[in-house]
Parts: sequence; structure tokens; C-alpha cells
Amino acid sequence: MTDIDAVLSQNLEFYRAFSTRDIGGMERLWARHAPVSCIHPGWPLISGRDEVLRSWRAIMRNPAAPAVLCYDENATLYGEVALVTCEEELESGTLAASNLFVREGGLWRLVHHQATPVQERHEPRRPTHRPN
Amino acid sequence: MTDIDAVLSQNLEFYRAFSTRDIGGMERLWARHAPVSCIHPGWPLISGRDEVLRSWRAIMRNPAAPAVLCYDENATLYGEVALVTCEEELESGTLAASNLFVREGGLWRLVHHQATPVQERHEPRRPTHRPN
Repeated sequence: MTDIDAVLSQNLEFYRAFSTRDIGGMERLWARHAPVSCIHPGWPLISGRDEVLRSWRAIMRNPAAPAVLCYDENATLYGEVALVTCEEELESGTLAASNLFVREGGLWRLVHHQATPVQERHEPRRPTHRPN
Repeated sequence: MTDIDAVLSQNLEFYRAFSTRDIGGMERLWARHAPVSCIHPGWPLISGRDEVLRSWRAIMRNPAAPAVLCYDENATLYGEVALVTCEEELESGTLAASNLFVREGGLWRLVHHQATPVQERHEPRRPTHRPN
């Protein structure tokens, strides 16, 4: 498996964990040693693994949390860091997302996530991953 | 100058170039060889140096483009990659921003920028950089 394939696989795992409300899976995805941060849509920056995971637990335990499908992923390697950009399709609209990974303990793990609502609508496309 | 100082200096240069409509300065900031991408607020992803710089020229030549003050910068090094998070204060509100830099030709250069509107208002703070 190439590094690009491994990163894209972890990116899909992120959306799988989110969509299936797999809190343990989400916790395994985020880096344990490298500093992590997250910018949810409309939120200010959240820094630190504990705070970032607390925010994800709150979102994933909320019954009103949306289902998310991931489209149009693109991974770029910058040495030992990988940036994945993709679109997140929610019932309420489309988000443009950046997911930053570092290699840690032999796995690509998330260190940063940011998602922005896209105002212009896209044509429906085939998702890379359909949760259940 | 430490790497962190050098990255934060380039981050301020980004906001200076934007605020003073210095298109040449903006062009010098973005990486020439490493792949670049950008997610402006409300826009889908833009990929490639030519497309990214075209978008910045269009924004910076628009007389209605807002002034931007940069607050609360934090830089994290991941090897040869640096992530700067900060808030951008505009008349219309606050944005949470991520700026990703790589070292290229002895300088830290931008490879990715994303900014998201923050819904909750913050107390006024002292900006790190005041244009003009």
C-alpha cells in the first residue's frame, strides 16, 4: 500500500467513525503525541487532544448530528505530513474539509481538521464511502 | 530566529500582503514547487498555484474586499511542515483560519489556507498586526 493509499484509507476511517458514531474509532484516529487541533464549522479553534476528542464525543452523542458522506478526496504528501482535502456531503449542504495527518506509531493519524460550508451547490456525485 | 518565529513572521506577511493589496508579496508567499490549495470562506477547494493566485488577485483587486486583522496565532512544527492557526477579524465578523507552510528555498512558504466564519463573537482583542 502506498503512503497516499494509507492516508486516504485513514481519511475514510475518519468519516466511517463519524457516521457510525464509533467514538473509540475516532479516538484511535487522532495523534497521541503530536499536537492536535480542530475547527468545526462555526466554532473557534479547539486545541489539544483532550479538548478535541471531547468536542467529537459531544457531536457524535448528539442524536441530531448529521450523517456525512465523503467525496472528491485528494491527498498530498509533504514529507512525513499528509494533507487530505475533500468535500463532506450533509443533508444541510456541502462542506469543504482539510484533514492533516502525521505518521505516528506506523499509522497516519489526524492532527488537524477544518470544515467550511460551501455556499455553491454541487451536482450529486457518487460517494467514496456510504455508511451502512 | 527560531523556526517558529520564522513561520509566524511569514504568517504575518500573508496578512500584511492581503491588507495592503500587495499582489507581488502574495505571489512570493505561496510555494513554487510543492502543491498548493486554498479554501476561501464559502468557496469549494481551489487547487494549483495558478488557480490559487488567480483567486487571490481577484479578491485583492475587489474594492469591496475587507480589511483583515490577525489575532491569536499559534504555530506548530511537524518536521518540515508548519501549521499556523489564527483568527482573522473582519468588519463582518471573525474567521478561524489554518495556514500550512513548508520550507522551500530557505523560506517557509504557504501550501494551504482555509478560513471558516466563527458564529460566536469574541471580545475585542489587541491585533498582532495593524495594516498601515
